[in-house]
Amino acid sequence: MFEMDHVALPTDDIAQGVAFYVEQFGAQVLYQDGTWAFLRLGQGKLALVTPSQHPPHVALRLSEAALEEAARRAEKPIDTHRDGTKGIYVSDPSGNTVELICYPAGETKYEKS
Amino acid sequence: MFEMDHVALPTDDIAQGVAFYVEQFGAQVLYQDGTWAFLRLGQGKLALVTPSQHPPHVALRLSEAALEEAARRAEKPIDTHRDGTKGIYVSDPSGNTVELICYPAGETKYEKS
Repeated sequence: MFEMDHVALPTDDIAQGVAFYVEQFGAQVLYQDGTWAFLRLGQGKLALVTPSQHPPHVALRLSEAALEEAARRAEKPIDTHRDGTKGIYVSDPSGNTVELICYPAGETKYEKS
Repeated sequence: MFEMDHVALPTDDIAQGVAFYVEQFGAQVLYQDGTWAFLRLGQGKLALVTPSQHPPHVALRLSEAALEEAARRAEKPIDTHRDGTKGIYVSDPSGNTVELICYPAGETKYEKS
């Protein structure tokens, strides 16, 4: 039900980080601005984030119904992002941020992978 | 050529972390000891690591030939792990640890996914 979707790594300089992953590992750029970038690496995805703007996290993909259930359990409102994805952020016992994300069909510019 | 393989999150208490990912997200335990654990989440894999024993990292899977080329470029010796995988650790420009890992056919107890 829960699938690994992406990991978001803290990055000081987004352009420099993007250049590194593109040149070294053949990443494809799905999105990039000054505060974060979203890269494809084979079948997987890697985000680079400016920690002051976006929290580093690991994202698990789930269905909209499962997201709604998880949000009820966590007592958190579901955020709708500008790219059409929906999600909530929770913390694991060690304080790592876990994003639970769903890609409503046809409502996002990123492919579901 | 490079595929996302897994992410390893810093974890204070491995047993507690494993219990959380199993109970909350249905993770399957591939390996667990007191210093680290390896979990399957759908098609993906998540490691939990005690930072003093194992560096948190993101791992990219590649072929043995590509690993050998990357090791030459990075001027690093290739490590063979107890589970049969081979790899090197490099750093991205922001200091995130990136493991380049290959799964030689038939030489590891973890599936290639």
